[in-house]
Amino acid sequence: MKQKQDKRQYTLAELTQGLDVSIRGDANCLIEGVCTLQKAQTGRIAFLSNPLYKKYLSNTQASAVILLSDEAQACSVNALISRDPYFTYSQIASFFDDKPKATAGIHSTAVIGQHCQIDPTASIGANCVIGDNVTLSAGVVLGPGCIIGEYSTIGEASCLHANVTLYHKIQVGKRVIIASGTVIGSDGFGIAKHQGVWHKVPQLGRVIIGDDVEIGSNCTIDRGAIEDTMLEKGVKLDNLIQIGHNVQIGEYSALAGCVGVSGSTVIGKNCLIGGGAGFAGHLTIADNVMVTGMTAVTKSIRTPGVYSSGVGGLVTNMEWRKNSARLRRLDQLVERVKSLETALTELERKEA
Amino acid sequence: MKQKQDKRQYTLAELTQGLDVSIRGDANCLIEGVCTLQKAQTGRIAFLSNPLYKKYLSNTQASAVILLSDEAQACSVNALISRDPYFTYSQIASFFDDKPKATAGIHSTAVIGQHCQIDPTASIGANCVIGDNVTLSAGVVLGPGCIIGEYSTIGEASCLHANVTLYHKIQVGKRVIIASGTVIGSDGFGIAKHQGVWHKVPQLGRVIIGDDVEIGSNCTIDRGAIEDTMLEKGVKLDNLIQIGHNVQIGEYSALAGCVGVSGSTVIGKNCLIGGGAGFAGHLTIADNVMVTGMTAVTKSIRTPGVYSSGVGGLVTNMEWRKNSARLRRLDQLVERVKSLETALTELERKEA
Amino acid sequence: MKQKQDKRQYTLAELTQGLDVSIRGDANCLIEGVCTLQKAQTGRIAFLSNPLYKKYLSNTQASAVILLSDEAQACSVNALISRDPYFTYSQIASFFDDKPKATAGIHSTAVIGQHCQIDPTASIGANCVIGDNVTLSAGVVLGPGCIIGEYSTIGEASCLHANVTLYHKIQVGKRVIIASGTVIGSDGFGIAKHQGVWHKVPQLGRVIIGDDVEIGSNCTIDRGAIEDTMLEKGVKLDNLIQIGHNVQIGEYSALAGCVGVSGSTVIGKNCLIGGGAGFAGHLTIADNVMVTGMTAVTKSIRTPGVYSSGVGGLVTNMEWRKNSARLRRLDQLVERVKSLETALTELERKEA
Repeated sequence: MKQKQDKRQYTLAELTQGLDVSIRGDANCLIEGVCTLQKAQTGRIAFLSNPLYKKYLSNTQASAVILLSDEAQACSVNALISRDPYFTYSQIASFFDDKPKATAGIHSTAVIGQHCQIDPTASIGANCVIGDNVTLSAGVVLGPGCIIGEYSTIGEASCLHANVTLYHKIQVGKRVIIASGTVIGSDGFGIAKHQGVWHKVPQLGRVIIGDDVEIGSNCTIDRGAIEDTMLEKGVKLDNLIQIGHNVQIGEYSALAGCVGVSGSTVIGKNCLIGGGAGFAGHLTIADNVMVTGMTAVTKSIRTPGVYSSGVGGLVTNMEWRKNSARLRRLDQLVERVKSLETALTELERKEA
Repeated sequence: MKQKQDKRQYTLAELTQGLDVSIRGDANCLIEGVCTLQKAQTGRIAFLSNPLYKKYLSNTQASAVILLSDEAQACSVNALISRDPYFTYSQIASFFDDKPKATAGIHSTAVIGQHCQIDPTASIGANCVIGDNVTLSAGVVLGPGCIIGEYSTIGEASCLHANVTLYHKIQVGKRVIIASGTVIGSDGFGIAKHQGVWHKVPQLGRVIIGDDVEIGSNCTIDRGAIEDTMLEKGVKLDNLIQIGHNVQIGEYSALAGCVGVSGSTVIGKNCLIGGGAGFAGHLTIADNVMVTGMTAVTKSIRTPGVYSSGVGGLVTNMEWRKNSARLRRLDQLVERVKSLETALTELERKEA
Repeated sequence: MKQKQDKRQYTLAELTQGLDVSIRGDANCLIEGVCTLQKAQTGRIAFLSNPLYKKYLSNTQASAVILLSDEAQACSVNALISRDPYFTYSQIASFFDDKPKATAGIHSTAVIGQHCQIDPTASIGANCVIGDNVTLSAGVVLGPGCIIGEYSTIGEASCLHANVTLYHKIQVGKRVIIASGTVIGSDGFGIAKHQGVWHKVPQLGRVIIGDDVEIGSNCTIDRGAIEDTMLEKGVKLDNLIQIGHNVQIGEYSALAGCVGVSGSTVIGKNCLIGGGAGFAGHLTIADNVMVTGMTAVTKSIRTPGVYSSGVGGLVTNMEWRKNSARLRRLDQLVERVKSLETALTELERKEA
């Protein structure tokens, strides 16, 4: 591994070459890194996307800020005007990315199985264990300690960070990124109770990971029971996510941390799933569904939209106890209203 | 490792030999694998257990279907009639299980401690690290990268997949399966605050895993503080489950993914715990309790039955906001009903 | 590794030397280990802290019990009277801690990068992989299979158990403990959607772990996007916790298992976060806040206190369905009350 030690500087003109942005201010201003608006310093570039942070714009010490044209007049420093500041930031930030670069080749301590097809441009880290009949395409990077089960294949330019475990027969697409500790292809939770005892149901499917998928750290993605578990192209998973057997997740859906998806549930394309949400099994979720954080998705969702479960937002514990008491009081209240209605009808009858 | 490459075919008669099923149709029909009812093909066998999938039965392209006798007349292909189709499926599916088989012996890269007792039929994968005084019984399989702490023992025919970590003095029974990334025996969360600072409380117990337990991937099971953390015979854990120190889980209980059980809680036998459920500490849960997914179990459960927490199922986010507003309106409603009652009493008094 | 095999015995006088406790009973009573009140035996010492276990005090078979002076008269065996029995227990229990001790030196199978600074008293386990330019201070212990990214530094007397993964440029303080399977420094969940496709946002910050922090097993702590993710001095994390990018957690805060903290949220000092709680992103949580288990923290908390979310504690599933029905009935009830009010006003008008 080698690291970019030269803290190179770029002019705003260099950073924005080819990008869909316009510079308002000094195009020759030198930038040596990124910063936030609030903890900014000279020589750094910040961005404004989340309105929460707008209050820091007027006094920022950054040398330049990426923002919408509407925000530009509140900006007293150099401005890069973009229709999508966060996307533009992601392009510019890549100039300053100093993460280690892998070098091609197989580390001497790696254990390689028989009949593997390993492209000479692939990089296999220390202590990796590659099973028989594995295929690693051009530019694949395996961090140290990765274990790849037999007959698995990894597509071009995909990167598995340290300590990723792939079981056998897993198919990983191109430009996939998998963070450390993630396990792909363990057996689904298939158990059949017979005469009071659980019996294991063989899990015969695979896991198919589409191109441009990114998976966070310590996730678990189970192999299918019969068919395959599938993450389609461009799916993004945060950390500590559990994907049950036979699950399918549609293109460009994104799941935040700690989500659990039970077996055989199918999630559509372009869905956004909040952190800690959980899905029951055997559900179908339409395209373009957004689920808020910690929601229990207990039934299928057929229509795009935003969904939640539970009642009562965050309150003090005292208020929370009161809310629960209120709820229990409801039956009694219904009875009191019923009595009132009867008494009133009686009165009205007399009156008439 | 070696893999069954011959996609062998079996007749229905061969597949069902000794099983408690009857064949309706051609007992010589050749089967080469399993399938689902909906994505079926000739030469494959499917099963019908979950009523959700009954709609696919009449048009299935499978060569045979395992089902209840009640469903058989809706089946236009060969039928295997069983009183427990899912269990029968699990038996038949094992004919087609092509997962890698381990071969006995210690991989040359494994690091073995002193005074270990390793049965010659045990299989120790590449880069395993075995501490001193470890006992591995006949037929034990350790996938690559497993780390076994000193004085731990693993019973006959148990299998730890790649990258499992066992701390010291952990006892694993017979025929136990532990999936990748799981950590057993880390210190419980024992901290004592004294003069504003947390102090670590030594965790002196062990973890005892009974026979026939299966544990999914990336689970964490803490060692006991004083006594041992214990999973009894036949317990089944899905992935990403947290088991706190001193927890005991009774025979044949099954926990779905992402469940958390806080320290010193005791769960009975034959319980079914839905995904994402959480248990407070120091609780006692009776035998035969079912807890629905994402339930917060905040008190002990003394009676078998089905339990849930929270209110309000999955709704649109707009409806969810309305529900919360309704709840807040309740106090006001109670006041209005109280006023009505007073006014009505007054009216009735006048009337009389 | 070596283990204390001598089950040494200590007198109560020896165990309490220098501690802020008084002995009531036989100071020469020999103690050879710890026990709980309920599963006690001669020669062992127990403690009473949680009132839940007070019922076991009068009949305990322990040779001595650590407890508050108020409880002492109900104790029929030797008593160690302490103002903080759990803390005193933690001090005494350390006499009986038999966890393996590491020996200094680098295991022959470890892979060490270039330009590392490794103190001769550090212990590096089998199959560790240390990147270039890593600094390991005096007394650092790395269990087997740890992977340390380049330019990371680990402070004096810190211990990483087996299979911990640190990415590049991570800073770990002194006396830090990190349990197995934990991943520190993976990329934050930074993705920008542009023209229907997610683009990765480079994650350029680091993770800073303060002194005396303890982190459980299979946790994930993402590196910052721009600034650093930070756990301040004395923070304690249980297992399976997700810490998003840019999160800051204040001194001596403790998070129970399965908590998720979304990106850019700042948690104050001395907070206590119950298991399974989840925090939305970009929140600010005051010092001394307690959050109960499985609470969804959806907004900032400015005032110390205890907070919860949701409504309706644990009930039978039947009651739970009734609660949800009650809630839906509320709109209708409001309408009925409104009609009653109108009718009553009319009646009162006539009456007058």
